Amino acid sequence: MIYLDNAATTYPKPKSVYKSVMEAMTVYGANPGRGSHAMAIEGARVIYETRELVAQLFNLDDPMKVIFTFNATDGLNIAIKGILKSGDHVIATAMDHNSVLRPIKELEKYGIENTIVSCSSDGTIKVDDVEKAIRSNTKLVVTTHVSNLTGTILPIEKIGEMCKVNNLLYLVDASQSAGVLEIDFKKQNIDFLVAPGHKGLLGPQGTGVLLINSDVEMKELREGGTGSESSSMYQPNFLPDKYEAGTHNLPGIAGLNSGVKYILDKGTKSICRHEKNILELFIKEVRKIPKITIYGPESIEDRSGVVPINIEGIDSSEVAYILDTGYGIAVRPGLHCAPLAHKTIGTDKIGAVRFSVGPFTKKTEIMAAAKALKEITEKNY
Amino acid sequence: MIYLDNAATTYPKPKSVYKSVMEAMTVYGANPGRGSHAMAIEGARVIYETRELVAQLFNLDDPMKVIFTFNATDGLNIAIKGILKSGDHVIATAMDHNSVLRPIKELEKYGIENTIVSCSSDGTIKVDDVEKAIRSNTKLVVTTHVSNLTGTILPIEKIGEMCKVNNLLYLVDASQSAGVLEIDFKKQNIDFLVAPGHKGLLGPQGTGVLLINSDVEMKELREGGTGSESSSMYQPNFLPDKYEAGTHNLPGIAGLNSGVKYILDKGTKSICRHEKNILELFIKEVRKIPKITIYGPESIEDRSGVVPINIEGIDSSEVAYILDTGYGIAVRPGLHCAPLAHKTIGTDKIGAVRFSVGPFTKKTEIMAAAKALKEITEKNY
Repeated sequence: MIYLDNAATTYPKPKSVYKSVMEAMTVYGANPGRGSHAMAIEGARVIYETRELVAQLFNLDDPMKVIFTFNATDGLNIAIKGILKSGDHVIATAMDHNSVLRPIKELEKYGIENTIVSCSSDGTIKVDDVEKAIRSNTKLVVTTHVSNLTGTILPIEKIGEMCKVNNLLYLVDASQSAGVLEIDFKKQNIDFLVAPGHKGLLGPQGTGVLLINSDVEMKELREGGTGSESSSMYQPNFLPDKYEAGTHNLPGIAGLNSGVKYILDKGTKSICRHEKNILELFIKEVRKIPKITIYGPESIEDRSGVVPINIEGIDSSEVAYILDTGYGIAVRPGLHCAPLAHKTIGTDKIGAVRFSVGPFTKKTEIMAAAKALKEITEKNY
Repeated sequence: MIYLDNAATTYPKPKSVYKSVMEAMTVYGANPGRGSHAMAIEGARVIYETRELVAQLFNLDDPMKVIFTFNATDGLNIAIKGILKSGDHVIATAMDHNSVLRPIKELEKYGIENTIVSCSSDGTIKVDDVEKAIRSNTKLVVTTHVSNLTGTILPIEKIGEMCKVNNLLYLVDASQSAGVLEIDFKKQNIDFLVAPGHKGLLGPQGTGVLLINSDVEMKELREGGTGSESSSMYQPNFLPDKYEAGTHNLPGIAGLNSGVKYILDKGTKSICRHEKNILELFIKEVRKIPKITIYGPESIEDRSGVVPINIEGIDSSEVAYILDTGYGIAVRPGLHCAPLAHKTIGTDKIGAVRFSVGPFTKKTEIMAAAKALKEITEKNY
């Protein structure tokens, strides 16, 4: 199997990730923070160390401001619903995923307005257009860092600056960029960052992080046992417990620990360079094939991780099916949970075949995919 | 290590659980429901099969009404906040965990009233007392099935009947009973059931289930990508997708699959008998030791899984510390995220040392714990 669906979840993970998950289950499989015995303490230690590693990766000072969530959607719901109140206005973009769009559309029912800023047909956005959407009651700007459909990199540094000037909170959805592109809380004006643990951070599914770099009052999404202030029927008001009710996904976090260690060891620059190189190679090869449309920015500098394409006259699901069954190549066809992004690039009716790479994707694999596409176009399905 | 903290999380799990988690990560580690290739399809198949197994265990007809959550707290928040609206009244009990109490206290801010019904000092409850708490605006009754502090079994069948007669919805928190006591949607009048995946169901942490046996209108807690109705910016309104936004914890669910298979194979009756036998043995031994108070019901018939104790003159944390460091015995001391349960049994100031067993706890282990307690009382710490 040639796995080119890394934007859905990275595969494989570093071997150390599998090992850590297994250790967390078999060696110290207790409930961290709910007991004081040796196994529970080891679990709590691994969880704290993972907060430190994640804080280090994103250059955030305080590890206690790293909140563990169960996926990026969970983190985005916690942040968006926690920050916004009735009467507020939020700005998002057409490139955002349904994990951003669906919560903000839901919040309309509670008197929270939104503006979704349009993007160009390659997925790029003008910071001016975001600024023009500001109203007197705008509280929050949410944007993805990298489009999960086109791979377009959004200028988060510039949007962050603009937010700072206008006294707005900025939430970055780093679902497609965390672990690959540089994200730095000290250099970039980011108030909140959400990332899944199982994509670029190379951890297992069932993990995610929400990083908080703001003192703004924020409600939690879930209340429950935290192992702290147990005599109180009210949720603790300190981090990270406020947002972490219930038992942690300890095996998942232990795996994430090893995933982030791998990234810190390799460096995001090296991972990013590798992914860009093979992506560029793929685009170069696919451009030679007639009947294929490639979506997203022209220059490799402006994109990361994913390339969506369509073959004239063949449904995207059919292309994916042929790649899967005829070539053993795994990609994702159809609509990619980003309805406005599809409208932006003109694929809302037809979908697209998305190729996405990871740190372990080989040149030979991406070349095999390009070759397969060439054969499919030639065979006239 | 003698692990007697199974009420926090069961340890060890059946070996098949570890194997399934590993397979889900290494063999078909894709994102189920987000692609159509072989690996994603295998992931989706395992998830569906797990819904079937869980439905079978609890005798629920429709596997699509088995919702995967990330822990029991997540499921309880989804259910409690999804069902209740401003103006409603909810009844809970003093034996409930903070994962029930904290959400319903939070909902007071939104005009949702509550009554928390008192229990006797052994944790037992009178169904009449629950019925007396009913008001004209009562919509929901929530009770734990088994107290996580005292092990007291609540009469869910009788409470369910009473709810049916009074046209109330009934939500059971099966955190301490699922996989051990018989729970049957056809025999018992249960509308909603929540269970963690990592306790009696023997799956890994980061998993949980919410079973829905009602057509009542219910809001979701999270919106986001579901891999369904992707062209819409609104959350799908069908089960299970409505309540399952974002990437699943596939390795966790695969492990839960094997945990539930293990239980179906052994039978809850056999697991329950084993746990009651060793618990009874433990209580019998500990009753012989002077200076020890045992909390909870007198008869083994009325309790399940856990026994809390205190030694006169020694703090519960100190007892747990000595057991851990001196005897390699893991238990949980202090307060157990159930503040009103502690008040009920009179340990809200002092906490309690909780011993909790699982399907793999051996007689020799529980006897070693009783012997250790005897020695501790004799040594006069």
